[in-house]
Amino acid sequence: MRLSQFHLRTTKETPADADVASQQLMLRAGMIRKLAVGLYTWSPLGLRVLRKVERIVREEMSAAGAIEMLMPSVQPRELWEETGRWEKFGGQLLKIKDRKDAWYCYGPTHEEVITDFARQELASYKQLPVNFFQIQTKFRDEIRPRFGVMRAREFLMKDAYSFHATDEDLGREYKNMYDTYGRIFTRLGLKFRAVFADTGAIGGSASHEFHVLADSGEDAIAFSTGSDYAANVELAEAVSPGERPAAAEAMRRVDTPTQKTCEDVAALMGITLARTVKSVAMMGTDPENNPRFVLALVRGDHVVNEIKLSKLPGMSEYRLATEAEIRDHLGASPGFLGPVNAARDIFVVADRSVAAMADFVVGANADGYHLAGVNFGRDLPEPALVADIRNAVEGDPSPDGHGTLGIARGIEVGHVFQLGRKYAEAMKCTVLDESGKAITPAMGCYGIGVSRIVAAAIEQNHDANGIIWPDAIAPWQVAVCVINPKNVDAVDEAAQSLYQDLQRAGIDAVLDDRGLRAGQMFADIELIGIPHRIVVSERGLQAGTYEYRHRRASEAEQLDRDAAIARVSGA
Amino acid sequence: MRLSQFHLRTTKETPADADVASQQLMLRAGMIRKLAVGLYTWSPLGLRVLRKVERIVREEMSAAGAIEMLMPSVQPRELWEETGRWEKFGGQLLKIKDRKDAWYCYGPTHEEVITDFARQELASYKQLPVNFFQIQTKFRDEIRPRFGVMRAREFLMKDAYSFHATDEDLGREYKNMYDTYGRIFTRLGLKFRAVFADTGAIGGSASHEFHVLADSGEDAIAFSTGSDYAANVELAEAVSPGERPAAAEAMRRVDTPTQKTCEDVAALMGITLARTVKSVAMMGTDPENNPRFVLALVRGDHVVNEIKLSKLPGMSEYRLATEAEIRDHLGASPGFLGPVNAARDIFVVADRSVAAMADFVVGANADGYHLAGVNFGRDLPEPALVADIRNAVEGDPSPDGHGTLGIARGIEVGHVFQLGRKYAEAMKCTVLDESGKAITPAMGCYGIGVSRIVAAAIEQNHDANGIIWPDAIAPWQVAVCVINPKNVDAVDEAAQSLYQDLQRAGIDAVLDDRGLRAGQMFADIELIGIPHRIVVSERGLQAGTYEYRHRRASEAEQLDRDAAIARVSGA
Repeated sequence: MRLSQFHLRTTKETPADADVASQQLMLRAGMIRKLAVGLYTWSPLGLRVLRKVERIVREEMSAAGAIEMLMPSVQPRELWEETGRWEKFGGQLLKIKDRKDAWYCYGPTHEEVITDFARQELASYKQLPVNFFQIQTKFRDEIRPRFGVMRAREFLMKDAYSFHATDEDLGREYKNMYDTYGRIFTRLGLKFRAVFADTGAIGGSASHEFHVLADSGEDAIAFSTGSDYAANVELAEAVSPGERPAAAEAMRRVDTPTQKTCEDVAALMGITLARTVKSVAMMGTDPENNPRFVLALVRGDHVVNEIKLSKLPGMSEYRLATEAEIRDHLGASPGFLGPVNAARDIFVVADRSVAAMADFVVGANADGYHLAGVNFGRDLPEPALVADIRNAVEGDPSPDGHGTLGIARGIEVGHVFQLGRKYAEAMKCTVLDESGKAITPAMGCYGIGVSRIVAAAIEQNHDANGIIWPDAIAPWQVAVCVINPKNVDAVDEAAQSLYQDLQRAGIDAVLDDRGLRAGQMFADIELIGIPHRIVVSERGLQAGTYEYRHRRASEAEQLDRDAAIARVSGA
Repeated sequence: MRLSQFHLRTTKETPADADVASQQLMLRAGMIRKLAVGLYTWSPLGLRVLRKVERIVREEMSAAGAIEMLMPSVQPRELWEETGRWEKFGGQLLKIKDRKDAWYCYGPTHEEVITDFARQELASYKQLPVNFFQIQTKFRDEIRPRFGVMRAREFLMKDAYSFHATDEDLGREYKNMYDTYGRIFTRLGLKFRAVFADTGAIGGSASHEFHVLADSGEDAIAFSTGSDYAANVELAEAVSPGERPAAAEAMRRVDTPTQKTCEDVAALMGITLARTVKSVAMMGTDPENNPRFVLALVRGDHVVNEIKLSKLPGMSEYRLATEAEIRDHLGASPGFLGPVNAARDIFVVADRSVAAMADFVVGANADGYHLAGVNFGRDLPEPALVADIRNAVEGDPSPDGHGTLGIARGIEVGHVFQLGRKYAEAMKCTVLDESGKAITPAMGCYGIGVSRIVAAAIEQNHDANGIIWPDAIAPWQVAVCVINPKNVDAVDEAAQSLYQDLQRAGIDAVLDDRGLRAGQMFADIELIGIPHRIVVSERGLQAGTYEYRHRRASEAEQLDRDAAIARVSGA
């Protein structure tokens, strides 16, 4: 491509309404233009990247045995009624009434349509397993669209749906898709993690999210430094750090007249936060289903995890206790609560790390006082229940026993899920098995946010000068920049010849023949993130050199022609 | 592709609700499945064809200098208000209200969005000319969706929009697109015609439709047998066939008691329809804008063309005369009208071919009688106006002077149009010219119905056994069919090896390894329209031959391996 024949329009100004780096850079590079809230036009430059992502996804899905098809974006209400999602899906479902007053929606996902297709197309177990995929425009009427194409309302998605005679075969394909996603994100050139997402209803491997790692990511991920283990922080098991030491201090009362938080108490006492214990009062139920006052204990530097708490017996519908309930049960105000001398009907749940503490500090159940040097077994009974009720933190042992946990931030760009028979049952999709009996196939679904990947790649790869594309999804791999203010024919010819040779070598090259000043040209090429740059100039030609620079390199190099080409192709 | 790894589901039954051959065959071949009225899922088989069409369109558009981009399918009402089309577009516009009660539409076309993009992106004449295109899903809420994907509500379209500093430059790009469309349809392997569509507001070359020729087409096209000339029958100029002969008969009255049509009169008299003249009574206006009774004369075998009539002076709002008006002016009933002895205030308009007639037959203005042997100048005055007021018919001289006209039926699959400044003016899209003055760019738009092409190709290419794809858009160019009931390894190996060699030669091959009986397998391969078929069987291998057959050939041939491959590649 010659840039003079292309449409490129960059700006130096950071757009006022762009909140994240990728959105700012995509707007500045002119990759996207906003049409309306959550609706973006992909300019020629942006589309080049989008199509490269799409192609890699398509190639790897096909290589993995999935078969491409294409479903309509507009879907009839009747199908969504069959699964109950017409109401349940919520406000994200964009509902549409046609000229005959029939209701449709703009598909946010295609479980209903594919299951309808399958119940017409699949008659026999012999047609299984099968995995259909499509790459298609979806719409979710987000209540607050934001971050450009990262959370747009209209977006491009790859969605795949597999059908299986048995759960085992679903598990096999799930693994196949899991591995395929790994290949896709590796080919895209992105740092990513497959994150254990939820235990779901089927089993331990029922759902994984794929996250592109980036400091600006919305999700916190706990990952092992010594293995492939990764999970959403909220779902990662928090492993306790070893055995409880022996008691070394005597219990004593500490004046904490205005110190109501662990932070304030630790500061007052000059100890680390990890020596304090936070007591959170809540209402659960006992085995007879009567209300029960619960005191949950976590270390002062830890955070209570509501999902984990709610999975404990009697806690499925817990709520925080009111101030009246607290005073009634503990005789103190919030900020001074603790398990010492707590009434017998109070159920004490200690996080594993609290159970492993000695000589800790805790509220005294008397306003203005805390207790220090507290020890289980001596100053108070052992907790009624010891469980994992906190968020994992950096440095925790990895739950799989290998290494410790790090915390990273990620952007969810993929999701693999074992759906089971939920949709097939609701929509009466069956096939005949070997004995001629109708069976309900098990389903898997596998999504990739194609347009979101473009933004996520930028979040992961940019600097002050702009985007830094991985080679595989760069709009072009290399820019041949022509510096020729005196219009010397030999310079133009050398640039054209180099450009053509790069193209012939299968390298996606762009010739910047716009005739701009070097500074302007380089700023554009850096902003739009072309990974390799070769400058052709009169001075260089006289010296027999081409100036090569990688987008991440701090210095340019003067190379001969073959060496410059070799740098681009990575040879 | 191995067919055993693909999803193919054909049926023998012709679906009850399919009205045209392409719809029937696409359903029988399992290319599409109906989701709802005017909404179709493209199965893996169908999508292969759709993508091949899409690729050819994309490649040729890019080669012609157009730049691909992608606009949202959902468009805000505000833009459509700017051009007044929110109301004017009519019921085909699918309007959508989002969760915040803001109105949008599912884009049926993108003039508003591209003009909005252009007014943000284009600042200077230096950025012109530019031609943006996209290949994207559109929605038109057809009042009566029909013929499968031929007139579906959701469909795939290529739409391009060009911007120019001058009308001349628009004309140049229009020609470029016209030629590009010719290349596209030629590469698709389809018989087509570029049809002159309308004079429009700009000039003689303002609009052409591209039609795929097929007997089942909705539109009638007049085309020259001796040149590229083609036009919608209603717009094609009807050229008169030479000079008027001398009068040879005397005028006489003929008894036609019940013969009210030219057909009946000709049958009674034993003459050809071309000897009769039809008189159609209507009301127009005179130069002072007063109502005027008009008698339009066309040959008995011709059809009055309302569009042409309405362009004559005083006829822009003409209507047919009532029976009372007819009796008042001519003293006779419809069926017996004629220009002889007509009152002076009656305006007689003769079609050119009537003006070239002698000794014709016409109504006598007396119920139950016609006149024969009538001649202008002798029996009645020359017509007040001689003009082209009929539809062109097969055999007419071509208006461009080369050859004669044939009439074909076509399916509109493309349209090139010089929009001029209508949208740019309405939406205040301007650029600065060389002198720094704001000018409104001229626009062109260029559409291709990508999904409709698939159906149109079938309408043009099918027989009793199914579809016959042109090589370029066949789901696969060649099927390697394995006949191996005894499971002889050598047969499987020979088939696999042939399949792989075909693939290596760049031929898109499919291996039918489903293990079906030959008859079933051949029926499928013929139904889905694979143009080339090679059968690998034990008997053939023993004789050293492969059975080759082209989908259009009546007989199969026994060829050696190289010769069979050569047939497929057309070498």
